[in-house]
Amino acid sequence: MTATYDGWTIPGALASGTAAGIKASGKEDVALIAFPDGAAWGAVLTRHELRAAPVRYLEKLRAADPRKPLRLIVINSGNANACTGPKGPEAVTATVRAAALAADVAPDEVAVSSTGVIGVELPVHKLKGALPHLRAGLSATGWDAAARAICTTDATPKLAYRPIVNAAGGVIAHVGGIAKGAGMIAPNMATLLGYVVTDLTLTPAQIDVALKTAVNASFNRITVDGDRSTNDTVLLAATGKATVAIDDTVLAAFQMALDEVCLELAKMIVTDGEGARRVAEISVSGALTDDDALRVARGVANSPLVKTAIYGGDPNWGRIAAAAGAVGVPMLEETLVIKIGDVTMFDRGNLPAPGSERAAAAVLAGSWVPITLRIGKGPGKATVWASDLGHEYVTCNADYRT
Amino acid sequence: MTATYDGWTIPGALASGTAAGIKASGKEDVALIAFPDGAAWGAVLTRHELRAAPVRYLEKLRAADPRKPLRLIVINSGNANACTGPKGPEAVTATVRAAALAADVAPDEVAVSSTGVIGVELPVHKLKGALPHLRAGLSATGWDAAARAICTTDATPKLAYRPIVNAAGGVIAHVGGIAKGAGMIAPNMATLLGYVVTDLTLTPAQIDVALKTAVNASFNRITVDGDRSTNDTVLLAATGKATVAIDDTVLAAFQMALDEVCLELAKMIVTDGEGARRVAEISVSGALTDDDALRVARGVANSPLVKTAIYGGDPNWGRIAAAAGAVGVPMLEETLVIKIGDVTMFDRGNLPAPGSERAAAAVLAGSWVPITLRIGKGPGKATVWASDLGHEYVTCNADYRT
Repeated sequence: MTATYDGWTIPGALASGTAAGIKASGKEDVALIAFPDGAAWGAVLTRHELRAAPVRYLEKLRAADPRKPLRLIVINSGNANACTGPKGPEAVTATVRAAALAADVAPDEVAVSSTGVIGVELPVHKLKGALPHLRAGLSATGWDAAARAICTTDATPKLAYRPIVNAAGGVIAHVGGIAKGAGMIAPNMATLLGYVVTDLTLTPAQIDVALKTAVNASFNRITVDGDRSTNDTVLLAATGKATVAIDDTVLAAFQMALDEVCLELAKMIVTDGEGARRVAEISVSGALTDDDALRVARGVANSPLVKTAIYGGDPNWGRIAAAAGAVGVPMLEETLVIKIGDVTMFDRGNLPAPGSERAAAAVLAGSWVPITLRIGKGPGKATVWASDLGHEYVTCNADYRT
Repeated sequence: MTATYDGWTIPGALASGTAAGIKASGKEDVALIAFPDGAAWGAVLTRHELRAAPVRYLEKLRAADPRKPLRLIVINSGNANACTGPKGPEAVTATVRAAALAADVAPDEVAVSSTGVIGVELPVHKLKGALPHLRAGLSATGWDAAARAICTTDATPKLAYRPIVNAAGGVIAHVGGIAKGAGMIAPNMATLLGYVVTDLTLTPAQIDVALKTAVNASFNRITVDGDRSTNDTVLLAATGKATVAIDDTVLAAFQMALDEVCLELAKMIVTDGEGARRVAEISVSGALTDDDALRVARGVANSPLVKTAIYGGDPNWGRIAAAAGAVGVPMLEETLVIKIGDVTMFDRGNLPAPGSERAAAAVLAGSWVPITLRIGKGPGKATVWASDLGHEYVTCNADYRT
């Protein structure tokens, strides 16, 4: 799952990353993405009640003029600029102004994101001080540096790329993105940051629809510890450098590539982390609606008892049944089927056949554990991915800061 | 918090407990509660979609004739009789018939409960075999034996008692109860069983109202790992042996005693367990409604990041804010106040004063951690109690069965 950056580029987009000293460790903590000729954009943002100042800024920026092109994205890790009172928007304004001035663009052409510790004032002077180096480092192949700089405790940077191909198999455009990891061993919140860029010419409305579709089937399907974050941001930008004309066929090909990029990044996030020993792929079918299926899948994915059983390699299907039935989505023993891998653990009221536990334990010995539930005869289905919950999770999250 | 049984009795009620061999450990695993002259009763039962056969039996029993008196309650631990297909109701029927026959009562005067492993057929013959010993052991002071027998991995039996007193301070009746522990180190599910008995003369309707009120402010306010169980049952029985006439004053005194008994049992449950190092008392005020306050309190209580921070003794108020804001209940930084003990960590946009972290860490060094959030200016408030999440939780739940 760990991708190595292979040098992909997106025409019209540059990136860089460096260390500004926001992280006490001295690791890279600021990234810059630049669209010298501008880019149409849209973002899916956290709806957390205490969402951070940079998130609120992006909401306003986009609402003010959806057609205004974006020219810069300034991202810092090491500090979330969340729950910082009036200092929060002040820090955003100062960052935006400094970046705009340095690059000779308008302030409302600059986006910002932050991730890291909550409730500590963002040291804007450090971020400002790094701007010359960030600008000097901008390159079409700077994505690896940017991906590293947005990480918090992610074990590896996360990058994904897909070409957009026409019927003849020719590459007509590109989709590439970077992301930083959620939860598990995250120091504070399961913050997710993702930046995906294409060189197609898209309207803000097309961007919104495509991004919402892709995020719903990827980033919204991973669960590490079930917490939503103050800073979650996934941004999609379109530079318009590709020469292909946009029609339904191209849009469909784009959506497929975008979906794949987002899903690959999401799977990297849930797989990543010193703490995650195993990832469970939880698929629910037979619900009345997709939404019901998703609720059940999330219920199983977020159950601490299921997550610890997966960590322990215990084929404890009773916990899976118990978590599934606790959500409030109607189901019956008489129609419920639970499998771990290909091993049937519960089949409409029938207990596991002899040897099933041992066979399921063998599935759980691996690092990727497929769990499927058929809860009825409806058409609704959903899949989510969840990390396990083990000693490393406790150690990382209990020992942080103290 | 650990109560020692001091010999309280409830006129008209007897109890006993013994080992039937359902638990592989050989520990006590069956209890009997008897009302020789009958008792009015009611129960709050889990609404889990896959609720166990004994729970469904109680639903039907009560619905069939609310005025039918109860004469026996047969409880087993070690096996939940849940997700056992058609074998589930068969085992219930066999248990009820055997108990009724042995005691010469009607089958519809017998209640049953189970708790323990899910998805394993209940060994009814063991339960039947223990009935003579259970009946022989029945005694007015058998509550300690019964409380021990309903435990699964509870570290201690849980009993609570309150006298009902009149204005002159005289004891006019009694309320006593036993419970078994939820979650944390529970092997399978956070199953809660509780049996509370009074000697007042109450109608089934009065029982239902009083029990719902008491449960909502006690058992429904504790969270260990956030999972609901297939078997949760809290039953209230009234033997009618007290001579006092029922009026509003007596009912109010009864409600107060019942609330206290349930709250004491609930707090014992959340405090219990090899795994729980600390208990957090999370109080939310200033919400628009009590329900909003409860949702926020539960959001904080169930956050794995908050629970691991409490385990680690880390005064990480950012995680508390982040968990509170993720629920979807409206709140603003400008009106939010967060305290750990008496130490203000966040005050309407203002960060902690110097020394606050150290003072809050001292609060977290204790075993009982009060956390208060004022989220606005509304009248809504709620308190919940939550255990922490540490290595013992992982060890107990990851290593079970394998």
